[in-house]
Amino acid sequence: MSETDPPVIGDAFGAALARCWASGARPGAAFEIVERDDGYIGVTDMARYFGGRDSWPDLERAALTDVRGRILDVGCGAGRHAVPLRQDGHEVVGLDSSPLAVAITLERGAPAVSGTAQAVPAGIGRFDTILMLGGNLGLLADPETAVVTLTELARITAPGGQLLGTGMDPYRTEDPAHLAYHDRNRARGRPAGQLRMRVRHGRLATPWFDYLLAAADELTDLITSTPWTLNSIEEHGAGYALKLDLAAPTPAAVRPGPETS
Amino acid sequence: MSETDPPVIGDAFGAALARCWASGARPGAAFEIVERDDGYIGVTDMARYFGGRDSWPDLERAALTDVRGRILDVGCGAGRHAVPLRQDGHEVVGLDSSPLAVAITLERGAPAVSGTAQAVPAGIGRFDTILMLGGNLGLLADPETAVVTLTELARITAPGGQLLGTGMDPYRTEDPAHLAYHDRNRARGRPAGQLRMRVRHGRLATPWFDYLLAAADELTDLITSTPWTLNSIEEHGAGYALKLDLAAPTPAAVRPGPETS
Repeated sequence: MSETDPPVIGDAFGAALARCWASGARPGAAFEIVERDDGYIGVTDMARYFGGRDSWPDLERAALTDVRGRILDVGCGAGRHAVPLRQDGHEVVGLDSSPLAVAITLERGAPAVSGTAQAVPAGIGRFDTILMLGGNLGLLADPETAVVTLTELARITAPGGQLLGTGMDPYRTEDPAHLAYHDRNRARGRPAGQLRMRVRHGRLATPWFDYLLAAADELTDLITSTPWTLNSIEEHGAGYALKLDLAAPTPAAVRPGPETS
Repeated sequence: MSETDPPVIGDAFGAALARCWASGARPGAAFEIVERDDGYIGVTDMARYFGGRDSWPDLERAALTDVRGRILDVGCGAGRHAVPLRQDGHEVVGLDSSPLAVAITLERGAPAVSGTAQAVPAGIGRFDTILMLGGNLGLLADPETAVVTLTELARITAPGGQLLGTGMDPYRTEDPAHLAYHDRNRARGRPAGQLRMRVRHGRLATPWFDYLLAAADELTDLITSTPWTLNSIEEHGAGYALKLDLAAPTPAAVRPGPETS
């Protein structure tokens, strides 16, 4: 019997995305393998990162009707939203921690840069809309990091700007493996839905990272500690869409409305 | 940061097969996640275990035209071959180490039992044809186990019986990860294509096991140490089909042919 080697740390997500892209984004060509710290492993088809408007969940489609001004697409992946937004004439920048994901988004015609919402690249400018779709509110990672991240995103958001994000309520499951995982987290003093996971592809694995699944009200509680205010929540099954507003400009800076209505 | 738990040892292969079967054997519903001891991980769709005759590789289809008498389908999986053979009126028994795979094969209408080719269940009787299709010559595990296994299978084969199996030549690859794995094995004194792997599904993992990929001539060399003789080899790309004969009965036992032809 021989010993077992650990995977090599690298851009496993991007490598799987690149394999899918090289296949023409064909379903069945490449998979996202996600390993959780309780030994659970799951697989989804990478083709979903290339899904056209018809494949977007209702919550995402609705959120995207609200975009305005300069847009930052946080966790842009293969540019599923950034590329069509750009085609529609919006000024959009994709942001992803995966260098290969950034390269694919660029190749597909949308501007994109490497980085994370916790460490936004310098010189990226200011945005009127921050997108965290595709469940990317999970990138808020954990309650403390969520506050830091939302504050950092507020710093690069223009006064009166907005954040549109989708997330998933972890408590809407009856899967015994997931329920046991919630208990495991609670026993460790962690929020039940704070997943610790990594992506694997071939010999590659990303570093372990936290991904926060929270009920909508858990997340809106956190928002009170940030510069953002809650505008609206839309729920659909276990999913929800949040619309956050950045504190409006001070009255002195408000452009006067029309004298008559 | 919290520690990482290992998976729970269990019938991960069968659990994935059962999920696929529960979905109506729909592609995209369940996946076979295979982890290798060098940290490499790969995924294939479980639906292939339910593929009909049209989906069978040419080598398998050709091999199946040769079946005769009572048939043992070693590593029967979901009964991909055993079920249609049964429907064609053959007497066939499936054998699989996965209890859930055996249950699915039974549910689909073919007899099947739990066990392995290294430990064939007592009372299973004698067979005229041993099938090891779908690359199941890999179940020979390693050179020493291959000789033991083929000898065990000869014990439950009637005189004049045959073994029909398919395998894959590991050297017909240019994938750097696989070539590096061959070197890793050689450095450990193992045959280059002797994979050490396990299947994962949800929180389950099978025990680690060896799966032997060998060039056709490496395998035929091993056969000289067993009761079997090589009848034919068909090659198709990296795949091959072997037809082995069990030493014919002694002349005294040969039934006289017709006096005139």
